[in-house]
Formats: sequence, structure tokens, C-alpha cells
Amino acid sequence: MSTTQYWVPPGVIDLGLGHPSLSLLPQPLLAQAARHRFAQDDRDALQYGPEQGGPGMRAALAAFLSAQYAAPAAAPVQGDGLMLTNGISQALDMICTVFTRPGDVVIVEEPTYFLALRIFADHGLRVISAPMDNDGLIPEALAALLVAHHPRLLYTIPTHQNPSGVTLSAQRRAQVLELCRAHDVLLVADEVYHLLTYTGSPPPPFALWADDPTVIALGSFSKILAPGMRLGWLQAPPARLAALAAWGVTASGGGMSPFTASVVQSLLELDLLGDHVAFLRRTYRARRDALVAALHTHLGDRLRFAVPTGGYFIWATSRTPLDGERLATAAAAAQVDFRAGPRFSSRGGLRDNLRLCFAYYAEADLEEGVRRLARALQS
Amino acid sequence: MSTTQYWVPPGVIDLGLGHPSLSLLPQPLLAQAARHRFAQDDRDALQYGPEQGGPGMRAALAAFLSAQYAAPAAAPVQGDGLMLTNGISQALDMICTVFTRPGDVVIVEEPTYFLALRIFADHGLRVISAPMDNDGLIPEALAALLVAHHPRLLYTIPTHQNPSGVTLSAQRRAQVLELCRAHDVLLVADEVYHLLTYTGSPPPPFALWADDPTVIALGSFSKILAPGMRLGWLQAPPARLAALAAWGVTASGGGMSPFTASVVQSLLELDLLGDHVAFLRRTYRARRDALVAALHTHLGDRLRFAVPTGGYFIWATSRTPLDGERLATAAAAAQVDFRAGPRFSSRGGLRDNLRLCFAYYAEADLEEGVRRLARALQS
Repeated sequence: MSTTQYWVPPGVIDLGLGHPSLSLLPQPLLAQAARHRFAQDDRDALQYGPEQGGPGMRAALAAFLSAQYAAPAAAPVQGDGLMLTNGISQALDMICTVFTRPGDVVIVEEPTYFLALRIFADHGLRVISAPMDNDGLIPEALAALLVAHHPRLLYTIPTHQNPSGVTLSAQRRAQVLELCRAHDVLLVADEVYHLLTYTGSPPPPFALWADDPTVIALGSFSKILAPGMRLGWLQAPPARLAALAAWGVTASGGGMSPFTASVVQSLLELDLLGDHVAFLRRTYRARRDALVAALHTHLGDRLRFAVPTGGYFIWATSRTPLDGERLATAAAAAQVDFRAGPRFSSRGGLRDNLRLCFAYYAEADLEEGVRRLARALQS
Repeated sequence: MSTTQYWVPPGVIDLGLGHPSLSLLPQPLLAQAARHRFAQDDRDALQYGPEQGGPGMRAALAAFLSAQYAAPAAAPVQGDGLMLTNGISQALDMICTVFTRPGDVVIVEEPTYFLALRIFADHGLRVISAPMDNDGLIPEALAALLVAHHPRLLYTIPTHQNPSGVTLSAQRRAQVLELCRAHDVLLVADEVYHLLTYTGSPPPPFALWADDPTVIALGSFSKILAPGMRLGWLQAPPARLAALAAWGVTASGGGMSPFTASVVQSLLELDLLGDHVAFLRRTYRARRDALVAALHTHLGDRLRFAVPTGGYFIWATSRTPLDGERLATAAAAAQVDFRAGPRFSSRGGLRDNLRLCFAYYAEADLEEGVRRLARALQS
């Protein structure tokens, strides 16, 4: 299949691709879920549905998230606080339409998910980047930016960030939230990788603070189930949910995906998703370890990187300055690809960085890809 | 199921509801299509997909539309000219994001689909309404508005319009297109009811002119299959499609609905949709005739209306001025509802109009609803 975002020339190993492998997409589980759903003659799933999504699906999702997020028993995730989306990209677009106006400022992390920048640009937002260290956003630097730029939104990927792999520490989460409260900034947390943790446990997600008027937490089935479902969710306090439900598209078309959501509802009700996510964790942990080992074996100390505790990516920094154009030419000759650092910068920086993904390829291809990358870097 | 747009109090007949009946949603056909799709182990349907939608689905849809639109053999609908959407509401939102800026003017018909106005408001557009007669938009009046307001978009529902039921004549279609070309206005044609024709044949849809840089034609599976699929399509020339494919959401998330589209692709490839649409035409024709007969029987000449040749609605005008508040109270007492005219006006007019839908209820309920409406109008 060929798209501008997903096309790998034959013979090339594209370590930049941020997609799951086709072989990891659980077609049989979804077929079973669809059979279960159709056996119930649930025609509501085929009708215009409630703006937030069907109550049955929201209850099933809330129970799943309560367990996966280890929510306190006294404060489980509530179905009423959830709204289904067509994925995080759609949710970001909707949030921009409803809560921003052109010219507003959005603060993003440096580096950040480059395609989110496209969505902000579509809405005429001005992007200001905030620095990170190994514990994520740096509160003092963020505070200065909030004072200087009066942003409307903060967009953060707090856990296993794309591309850096960094996780915002528990203490910093509280500080960032407090800063957003104090400056009346909407904290939009993209928690798409939170459930894909391979080492230790990340701090609690912002989803567990989503009754705070400052927070909108975004989740997705794209990385824990299948991107082609185009199904995700958001958690927000009642006033925000009401504003989103009054958005013209949901007012006109109803909830985002009644049919797709009903199939995933069956998947949850049949209790098939938890085991699948556990399988993904084992698989991706092994792939991460294979990529790390290959980088050490074939590149020695040519690239610096922290071993990520979860997610899809290793964010590597060259110990010597990179010439992006020469490296791209050498990589093409070696039949390997990656994502160059400047893509993830909102200000043209990060020239010595590479994003490498360990989700798409199995171990043997990851190692062969690194072998080729080593050739390209040495030439 | 309860949503702000779809909740009928028990015992009430809501003749205003613009939804298909639950009983007309073809659950067994979709179950068959899903089985067919899953039997193929088509994992591309679960992956991020091409921005315009998968080529197989676009080819199947193009063939279906060529037949349904009676496209000339020399100029069939082309898959390359199609982009899948999450329905017309999502398409309108995307068009506003990509092709308009706040403060731009959009021309709409008076009356028009009231929920489209919400989408335009979300994008800060200024709405100007253009008058219609029994042949649709009046070219001379439209020309004057184009000169006076320099709009960016014209939003029209050319066939079996919601709410008026009016169809733009063939001659006027050519005139409206020529005016839009001359004034560099994007003609956005919402052709959701085009395939639901019960009497005669409508003029060719704007979809057949969608290689013209001026035109974007919108279609949907909501009214010919099931709203819960949230699946539609648009047709536009290559430069427009490229701009829409570069939209941040598709750049990030890929095509709108790979999974849902793959199920509908099977429905098309199994040749199940044509017969279903023919069944809907027969069913809705009978319901339209029942509503018309009931209006004549129970209301005599109290309401004026043209018998629509297709679509979902009868648009009735009271022969005597209506007091909206008193009528609403009387209707509630009689356990009937409708959509009052001012909802469909972008300028608070149409006070003596009612929109009545013949799609949601079967014949007996339509007649009982009209009996109650007659009581409300007489009180």
C-alpha cells in the first residue's frame, strides 16, 4: 500500500516508520469481536449515536482503562467522562476548532511529534517549543514560556514520548499541571504510548486527572489494537465534554464511530484486549532489546541514546555533527531509512538526532537495518 | 438511545426526526460483508491507510457511483477522484479548515440544513443566505450576492434538498456552476439524497462535474446504508484532493476509516448495495405517499406543500401565520413533534414553515402523527 506517509521502496528497511507490523494486527480477534457484535442485532451501532459515544462502549472502555491505568478503587475511570474520537489526530483537530482561534499560541515539547505540528498549522496556531531533559518538560523553562507567550494550549506526550522516548516524572507531572492551572492553559496530554511500557511502571497518566478543568487526556486504539480502526478516546471534565459534544460535526453526525466502536466494545466485553496488549508488550520489549543490542554491536559509541522504558522509539544523538543531506544519500545507497531529527523540531533544530522505531520490524530486520545504518554513518 | 439530537420522549411521534428507521438498517447485509472481508485476512484494512482511502474501496465505489449516477460511458466516475470521509459533516469541517479562514463568507440556501450552520459557525464563517424557488437557487439573486459579498464557499444541497425537498433544475445547475467559476467561489454540493429519488430522475449530480476546479461534491452512506458507519466520500479535482490529503489529520492518521471502508468495500464487491438502495426507494416512496395522503386527509388545505420527488422531507407552509410558541405547546400536548421553520433559516425567518420527515416512521405512525399534528394546529 502506498501513501505519502507509509511507503517503503522495495528492499529498503525503514527504521523511521512509526507503524505497527501488519503481522501484529489482530485480525482474528477483531473477526471474533465483529461476529459477537453482529450476533446481537445491535442496530443502535448502525444509527446516529450519542455525541460522546454509546454508553455501553464507554462503560466497557472505562473498566478497561481503570484496570490498565491502575486507577484507585475509589476513583475509577468513569464512562461519563469519556468521549470517543477517530483517533488522537482527529481529537487534536477538534480541540483546535473548539478551543483555539488562529493566532493563539500552543506550547509543544522540543522534540515533538511532527505531524501534530501540521494539525496546529492547519488552525493557524503559533507554535513555541519548550525544552525537555531526561525527566521530560522542565518546569522552570515552561513557566518562563507561559509568562512570555500566554499560550492557549500545552501539547505534551508525557509517557514514552514520540520521538524522545522520555517519560515525564511524577513530580514534574504535578508541577506542569499546577503551572497550567495557574496560567489558565489547557493541558492536552497525548497518552498513546502509556500502555506500552516494557520496563518498570510509568507515573499515573494525566487521564487520572481528567476531572480537572485544565486537562484533556487523549488515548487511542491505534497502537494497542489497530490504526485502521481510527478509534480513540478523550477524557475531560463535563464542561469541556459539553463544548466538544456541541461541535458542529458531532451535533450533525452524532458520535464519531458507532459501528467501529461497537466492534471494539465486543472485544472489550469478551476480555480479549488485555491479553493482546500484554502480548504486544512482550513483543515490543524483545524488539527494543534487539535494536539496542544491534546499535551497540554495529555502532559502538557512534550514537548516544537512553534505552526507552516503553513506546515505539529510540531517539539517538550522534556524537559528531551530522550532515543531513550526505547522510540521506548514504542511507539511500545502503537501503535503509530513519527519521531525521529536524522533523521533530518546531524551530529547525535537532540536526544531530535520528528517530529509530522498533515496532514495525521483527528482530532480524532490525539488526540488518542497523548494519546498513552503520555503513551509511561511516561513509 | 438518547442524544441531544436524537431523543424522542416515550409516546411521542416526532415527525421532525431526520433519521432512518432502525428497522431499515441492513444489519444482515453488513454482517455478510464483514464476514467476507475478514475471510480475506486483509490486514491493510487495520493499518494506517492512504489519505484518500484504499484503492480497492475507491475503485468499487467509483463503479457503484458510475452506475447509480448514470455517468456517461466515456466519463465514468474515477477512483482517483474520490476521497473517503467520515460522512458529510466531517467533510464540511475539513473543507472549512483547509479552504477557509475565519471571517470568510459562505453562501447557503434559504432554507438550508441547520446543522451545517453549526459547522460554519465553528470556523468563524459569516453566513449569507440565498433565496430559492421551486427550481432551487435563483441565479440572478445568487449573482448579486456573489458581487456583494465575495464569498469563499457556496454550500448547496442540489437534489431533494433538506428541508425544502426542492431539486435544482439542470439549467440552473449549469448557471450556478458558471457563476461560481466566474467569481472564484468553491461550490460545495451536498448530494446526500441524490440516490433516493422516488419520482422521475433528477438532473445529473455535481459529482459528474467534479473534475472542475470549482466543485467539491459530497456523498454519504448515511442515508443509503447506515449513519453509524460514519462513512462518506467526496469528489474533487486533483489539486483540491492534494490539499485535503495534506490536511494535518490525514497526514498523521492516514485515511479516514480503513476498517469501516473495507467492510463497505465488500458490500459493494458482493453487489449488495444496489438492491438495498432500490428497496429503500420503494419503502420511502410508499412512506412519502402515506404522509402526503394523511396531510390531505387530516389537514385539508391548512398546509401548502409540494410533493417531493425524493429525499426524506416534506416542507410545509401554513396558510395562516403560525405562533411558534403556542404551536410547540399544543404539539407537546398532542404528543407529536416536527422541526419548526426558523431552525432552517440563517436569519431567523421561515416562521410559518414545518419540516416533516417520512423516513423514520412507517405508514401507520405517519398517519397517526399527522392526526395529532392536525389537533395541535387546530387548537
